[in-house]
Amino acid sequence: MGYNVTQKLIKDHLVKGEMKPGEEIGLKIDQTLTQDATGTMVMLELEAMGLDYRKTEASAQYVDHNLIQEDSKNPDDHLFLESAAQRFGLHFSRPGNGVSHPVHMQRLAKPGQTLLGSDSHTCANGCMGMLAMGAGGIDVAMAIAGEPFYVKMPEVWGVYVKGELPDWVGAKDVILEMLRRHDVKGGVGKVIEYYGPGLKELSAMDRHVIANMGAELGATGTVFPSDEVVKDYLKRQEREEDWIELVADKDAEYDLHETINLSELEPLIAKPSSPGNVVPVREVAGEPIYQSYIGSSANPGYRDFAVAAEIVKGKSVAQGVSFDLNPTSRQMLQDLVKDNHIASLLSSGGRLHQAGCNGCIGMGQAPATGRNSLRTTPRNFPGRSGTKEDSVFLCGPETAAASALYGKIVDPRDLGEYPKVEEPAHPTVDTSLLEYPLPEDEAKNVELVKGPNIASIPEMDELPDQLELPILLKMGDNISTDEILAGGARVLPYRSNLPEISKFTFEIVDDTYYNRAMDTKEQGGHAIVGGYNYGQGSSREHAALAPRYLGLRVAIVQDFARIHWQNLVNFGVLPLTFAESAEAEKVEQGDIIQFSGLREAMKNGETITAKLKDKNQEVQLRHTLSSRQVDMMLKGGLINWTKEKA
Amino acid sequence: MGYNVTQKLIKDHLVKGEMKPGEEIGLKIDQTLTQDATGTMVMLELEAMGLDYRKTEASAQYVDHNLIQEDSKNPDDHLFLESAAQRFGLHFSRPGNGVSHPVHMQRLAKPGQTLLGSDSHTCANGCMGMLAMGAGGIDVAMAIAGEPFYVKMPEVWGVYVKGELPDWVGAKDVILEMLRRHDVKGGVGKVIEYYGPGLKELSAMDRHVIANMGAELGATGTVFPSDEVVKDYLKRQEREEDWIELVADKDAEYDLHETINLSELEPLIAKPSSPGNVVPVREVAGEPIYQSYIGSSANPGYRDFAVAAEIVKGKSVAQGVSFDLNPTSRQMLQDLVKDNHIASLLSSGGRLHQAGCNGCIGMGQAPATGRNSLRTTPRNFPGRSGTKEDSVFLCGPETAAASALYGKIVDPRDLGEYPKVEEPAHPTVDTSLLEYPLPEDEAKNVELVKGPNIASIPEMDELPDQLELPILLKMGDNISTDEILAGGARVLPYRSNLPEISKFTFEIVDDTYYNRAMDTKEQGGHAIVGGYNYGQGSSREHAALAPRYLGLRVAIVQDFARIHWQNLVNFGVLPLTFAESAEAEKVEQGDIIQFSGLREAMKNGETITAKLKDKNQEVQLRHTLSSRQVDMMLKGGLINWTKEKA
Repeated sequence: MGYNVTQKLIKDHLVKGEMKPGEEIGLKIDQTLTQDATGTMVMLELEAMGLDYRKTEASAQYVDHNLIQEDSKNPDDHLFLESAAQRFGLHFSRPGNGVSHPVHMQRLAKPGQTLLGSDSHTCANGCMGMLAMGAGGIDVAMAIAGEPFYVKMPEVWGVYVKGELPDWVGAKDVILEMLRRHDVKGGVGKVIEYYGPGLKELSAMDRHVIANMGAELGATGTVFPSDEVVKDYLKRQEREEDWIELVADKDAEYDLHETINLSELEPLIAKPSSPGNVVPVREVAGEPIYQSYIGSSANPGYRDFAVAAEIVKGKSVAQGVSFDLNPTSRQMLQDLVKDNHIASLLSSGGRLHQAGCNGCIGMGQAPATGRNSLRTTPRNFPGRSGTKEDSVFLCGPETAAASALYGKIVDPRDLGEYPKVEEPAHPTVDTSLLEYPLPEDEAKNVELVKGPNIASIPEMDELPDQLELPILLKMGDNISTDEILAGGARVLPYRSNLPEISKFTFEIVDDTYYNRAMDTKEQGGHAIVGGYNYGQGSSREHAALAPRYLGLRVAIVQDFARIHWQNLVNFGVLPLTFAESAEAEKVEQGDIIQFSGLREAMKNGETITAKLKDKNQEVQLRHTLSSRQVDMMLKGGLINWTKEKA
Repeated sequence: MGYNVTQKLIKDHLVKGEMKPGEEIGLKIDQTLTQDATGTMVMLELEAMGLDYRKTEASAQYVDHNLIQEDSKNPDDHLFLESAAQRFGLHFSRPGNGVSHPVHMQRLAKPGQTLLGSDSHTCANGCMGMLAMGAGGIDVAMAIAGEPFYVKMPEVWGVYVKGELPDWVGAKDVILEMLRRHDVKGGVGKVIEYYGPGLKELSAMDRHVIANMGAELGATGTVFPSDEVVKDYLKRQEREEDWIELVADKDAEYDLHETINLSELEPLIAKPSSPGNVVPVREVAGEPIYQSYIGSSANPGYRDFAVAAEIVKGKSVAQGVSFDLNPTSRQMLQDLVKDNHIASLLSSGGRLHQAGCNGCIGMGQAPATGRNSLRTTPRNFPGRSGTKEDSVFLCGPETAAASALYGKIVDPRDLGEYPKVEEPAHPTVDTSLLEYPLPEDEAKNVELVKGPNIASIPEMDELPDQLELPILLKMGDNISTDEILAGGARVLPYRSNLPEISKFTFEIVDDTYYNRAMDTKEQGGHAIVGGYNYGQGSSREHAALAPRYLGLRVAIVQDFARIHWQNLVNFGVLPLTFAESAEAEKVEQGDIIQFSGLREAMKNGETITAKLKDKNQEVQLRHTLSSRQVDMMLKGGLINWTKEKA
């Protein structure tokens, strides 16, 4: 039996496990990508591990999220990241150079390779015949240090693409169609692989659009073949030598099947407030809008801006519409300037912002209260725009530009002749804001530049054999990582400062937690108790790191959300579940829980028995750590484990 | 005896008082200008006054300060301002259209008219043969309502300009030379009038640069004649019909005299942290820089960007330099795009931001800790960039661009041949983001759009006859309104919400002030003590309103900057100066100062005697309020006074 592209990529990088869907496999990682909002912690982790030089083929640190420099915190982080990139042998993409995903595609993506990134849209580079996956920060740190990435072997979902895109329909409508069919959990545990005769109609950048929002389907990754289209793209980026052909074998099979006929698609739009809430644009036409927003890694291409420019050329946006233009890379911005598209966008009334993620991650451009915002971005979760109870619609640039002209949602097909645009034959290649890695001998001499807001990760001790821990919190079900450690403009500036960011821990649940936890920090620590689905939501590793810093040693719940469980293990917090759900009734906030002979018990099996000190009662608990993870836990977490290994 | 231009402008608009320097005069105001950071309060004041329609010839509301939309506060303010502009018959310049001063110059400025603006750099339009003055918001509100503007008759300071600017020397160096000679108080009580054969060498936009930073000299205004240069400018803006000639009579005289020989100037730079701290660039050459920043109303012209573009063309900025480009109007940005200057700036590594005030007012682009920032902006007061203990240098675009290439301060004359640039013969005229006033009958039907962050101004009580006030702060010289109440992205969103914004009062000087002041708020209030040039800088009336809200009743200093003094009077804070400078030595922070029979004393003359409670000492003080102002002060400020009048 032949292999599909995904299986070929996995087979070529398999260092542990078997390729059976659902089983844990270890994959060699060729490239990594970090952005500034997650990268500071990754760099601090590399420092704590004592890494000398990257072990990957290429790793790039981008600055694209925190571009608003309200005070010295963000620019200090940028300088820290630059020095860390120099120290560890990474590429460094300076602020203003653009969004990580399109810039990585332009300058570094290589067919046939694996890419791991601390950004959920890392999957976008699956458009280049890569296995590209988003992961938590420390997973990426480990990959930079040469460790495999562990993931469950995915099912491969073959999407057969045929037909041709009609006028006024673009790649964004392809992925919106997938979301319309399968909603935001449809891709969980799967890699989506596109194939078929329709692919030749989709440029490499169109494929980027489709692969990017595989994240919104919950997919492990999205894979396109590396074909002539990719070759042509690399050639125009002056990197033809990086191309290899990578296509599915003729007799390849897929675990799941799907067909998309491009010819049958129409302009689609995701209504507030989920990317899965997709309907045809015509169903919401007439809805008034406050903002039309073009940009982000979900529509990052030259054509996405050029087609908008052609639509508004010689016209003015409607009174009251904020027409926000967010170029995604400096390379592309220069081509748009050269080809007079920026002139058209500006003279129609556009607000041209610097190249970066910007409003897509709530960094500016928030809409007014109660007004509709139309965006080409990938997500419209509630409040993500920065405005509470916002009303954000997701669509392609055709719909966004057409609607800007009328001040209301317009089906772009009503505009008449479709302005087809061509990608530039010789796009600008500009590396003036992309710093290349220092050679290893020079890198060793680089000092990390740490502004006053950047704090190293404190050392963490081994798991003690005896523990006597007050239970500081007993919580209910579905506690999310947002409740454990909030995001937002107030908290985010401290992402590189563990002691500071930890002050916000559990603030939403119980604002006395921080002070009570600090009291336990030097006294042996504390435990917390939760219910079902503990740690759901965002993958932020600070939700494990911050309570660990405050002395959390053991988290006892009914069950854990997968990524948070992994994060707890990585940072040396012992995650335990009640052996029987009724065991939870014995335990109250304020009790003191005792463990003895813990290290031996961990090694001997899943069962852990604890005592409630003043109650003279036992509680039956369980852990589900692999032996690799037990070893890591005993050493105090992944950082210590890596150090010892080195 | 003939008149100079300033005297002609005053004579034509005099509605009260006599043209004797130092005496209060009332002037008819033809035009007003408000920006968003001050304008929300102005519009709330107009609403409170019950204004039906503007009484001025033209009034424009700009949105240029609060362009970062982190959440709904700023965009809600923009919608409020748009609705208020429609309601009261004002022009409305939408976010992204550009900085008020250059946009006003392009589209509305008229020779021979008076312009009052709630922005301290309103004086920039003195370049157009106008008497253009910055004032507090409520003064502008009164002007929109048809009331005269009261100001002390200035001395007219004639600056005779001769010679020609050498290569690499620009208009910015002319005003920096004035600041080098006279420092930040040199212009207090004066209108600076430029005349002489050298003027023909200075374009209308060059004159804007010079007039703009008259604010940094503390001048009441800066006046240029309306000559052929102004006529040519208006012609190119398609407004030749707005031109009238306005030049000094041949036998005109000036109260004070100064000569500038352009031929003798060299590139100058203001060192941290005062615009008056000027030295030749060569004296600080070699100093490493982190940032080179181009933009702001102090260098808003096409030529300011074009010359920078020519300097960096085909080159790259030094590694580690953030080269921040802040276009000042959409019109000009379009010309810079058309003429390939944006292409040059981008390909050198520039970060192109949207058109607006941006980093000049601390809205983003803050430098990293301990790093030097080189800016073409008008101000480098401590912390104004957003970074605490920042290190900001002010210079012209030639020095900024040259230094960006080398990563250190460079005398641009070292670069060789000077790239002279020409203004476009037919600049873009674009009004797509400028909304014109509604006619009066339509305006009446407009409802004000008030988002949840917009709060009314609390009522204020009369000046008590007896006061016993703790002195909460004793400060040094040159305390700016930035130090009294900071700008920046953290604070500015609360400009329409007095209780919230007051929390930031004096934060830079002493972050315990707010809590200590709140303790006095219901206990009779408090006083503060300052040195010379107290309240210099920005015209923000919040710097008077917020401390007043917190209980400030009396400010005692050596002397006041004009606009802040006026703002204190308007909001019922009694501004007093020490009768002799040595009197200040008696007073310490923490003392309790007592006034008795204050209301009578105010009416009877300038002298006020206070007692220091625990010291058994008297302090001799003075007020310089006119009888109109005494009346207003006794009533608790202009709002109460206007209400009573109506």
